[in-house]
Amino acid sequence: MTASTAEPAIPDISDIEAAAARLRGLAAATPLIESQAANARIGGRLLVKAESLQRTGAFKFRGAYNALSQLDADARRGGVVTYSSGNHAQGVAAAAQLLGMKATIVMPSDAPAIKVASTRFWGAEIVFYDRYAEEREAIATRIAAASGAVLLPPYDDPRVIAGQGTVGLELAAQAATLGARLDAVVVPCSGGGLVGGIALALAATCPETAVYAAEPAGLDDLRRSLAAGERVRNDPAARSICDALLAPTPGVLTFAIARRLLRGSLVVADDEVMDAMDVAFADYKLVAEPSGAAALAAVLTGRLAVAGRTVAVVLSGGNVDRAAFAGVLARG
Amino acid sequence: MTASTAEPAIPDISDIEAAAARLRGLAAATPLIESQAANARIGGRLLVKAESLQRTGAFKFRGAYNALSQLDADARRGGVVTYSSGNHAQGVAAAAQLLGMKATIVMPSDAPAIKVASTRFWGAEIVFYDRYAEEREAIATRIAAASGAVLLPPYDDPRVIAGQGTVGLELAAQAATLGARLDAVVVPCSGGGLVGGIALALAATCPETAVYAAEPAGLDDLRRSLAAGERVRNDPAARSICDALLAPTPGVLTFAIARRLLRGSLVVADDEVMDAMDVAFADYKLVAEPSGAAALAAVLTGRLAVAGRTVAVVLSGGNVDRAAFAGVLARG
Repeated sequence: MTASTAEPAIPDISDIEAAAARLRGLAAATPLIESQAANARIGGRLLVKAESLQRTGAFKFRGAYNALSQLDADARRGGVVTYSSGNHAQGVAAAAQLLGMKATIVMPSDAPAIKVASTRFWGAEIVFYDRYAEEREAIATRIAAASGAVLLPPYDDPRVIAGQGTVGLELAAQAATLGARLDAVVVPCSGGGLVGGIALALAATCPETAVYAAEPAGLDDLRRSLAAGERVRNDPAARSICDALLAPTPGVLTFAIARRLLRGSLVVADDEVMDAMDVAFADYKLVAEPSGAAALAAVLTGRLAVAGRTVAVVLSGGNVDRAAFAGVLARG
Repeated sequence: MTASTAEPAIPDISDIEAAAARLRGLAAATPLIESQAANARIGGRLLVKAESLQRTGAFKFRGAYNALSQLDADARRGGVVTYSSGNHAQGVAAAAQLLGMKATIVMPSDAPAIKVASTRFWGAEIVFYDRYAEEREAIATRIAAASGAVLLPPYDDPRVIAGQGTVGLELAAQAATLGARLDAVVVPCSGGGLVGGIALALAATCPETAVYAAEPAGLDDLRRSLAAGERVRNDPAARSICDALLAPTPGVLTFAIARRLLRGSLVVADDEVMDAMDVAFADYKLVAEPSGAAALAAVLTGRLAVAGRTVAVVLSGGNVDRAAFAGVLARG
């Protein structure tokens, strides 16, 4: 932890390196993938960090395992409770199973079937709630209080942020191996744990790289919070196919990191996200879930200029139902 | 080349290592991917070598570049001619472009659109033929004779076999990193260049690993050739969705390698291949073309017993049209 600032809980590079050591042999070092065809179309060099190929099909295992593996035996015995739209759910469930912990996950009743099935596969108990009518945090807090379990937040936790930051460490090392100097990195953003962790890692390893979030249109709470200088909330009526990017407002810690380190947040519409999923399929041979393709969409739409530059995007997850994916292919 | 046998053209491990050195920084070191959910279902450990993530979306770039990069300047000026159902086409086209060579590819008129488009993207000239009425080898030989271009066979060439063998070198090293002792490796097989190259690599690096080919039902010329002790041909009326696994008979070199080093060839039906493509999507988040999923199908159907063992399959390519992939998802 950083000792010298007013935000003692923001992790520093040593926390991220410690997370990488904890994850070694458990989290996949996901590949950084390039398509010459896509590069030719955009006139720049685009590198795709495929966290869809991570254990549980999304980056979330990194933060979950980094947090839970630091609990002592007593805390582990009490189990863990969390709330998640589905990817943090699977990450926590998988990490808990590895550590011999019971996991209870509060999930929206409209979560993709593949996320529900995978969370069950990892042995977690699921408590459903109505995403648009109930407060998931309150439900999880109640369960934790009643059961004595640890409540692990999905993003506003320094151990979670440090774990997600290991994506940034890998990305920096892989880009260097390719001889690529990263002008910018774009990262899908919900609560801001992934983009925050990556920004911290890159600030320490390649500080010249500009880091951007990518958010769904209408759910651009980070962009508006950065503009306002304070955390603002999304309109509860806003909807998006990006089922993993629906957090109502940035976290306290993640917003502090974003203000300090992000260059901005790029906003993408649902049809642009579907176009990006199609490109991920055709050019990169990757299965992207809608939320996972948000950063790719920001680049393909030109929201971030790539011509003549080298840009990396994180493809953050691949947990998408068959029908939704077939719907994307039918547009192509 | 092996100097001490009656088959002087069969590459040895030093040829494969030399190929790996030529390909460094050009071919991707594709990831070896694992799904705990799939492992739990089959009761064993299954590792998927994702050559779908290779440059051009299939393993073929390895052999093509290894062969063409060994030509001298004179030969390069004459260009290259080859015949291919689409993946060798893209591999040769991409290698030729990197080396500043003109490429002419004889392709079947019913090749997947994505393979035709990508071969054009890499700057090759395409000559179409009727897969079921014309002899592609004769057409390519005629073009080569008329133009002075080098004719590069898709599999029956020691430089091509050595290039494909680099998949085996990587696989052995990656399995060792995971602490996995490979009981068996299964590889999709058309002319036998990939499975032959991998068998040569594994014979030198982990000789206890059993290597199998996987072939489409009705196009199991290798299985029948191994049984007969001589190269036999497929029924010209046989059809399969595995558009890259339709070679009529094993190559001379590749059959010699197969007789010496393969444990057998496993035969899979088209619907089993589609089931495997669906598993690649849902559990591995990988886009597999039908031919690319043949080895995975051989394991998922139990044609090769995996319970209690560690088996790797090569997912050899991901060049599949949208409609064909959507058709697979609609069955799931």
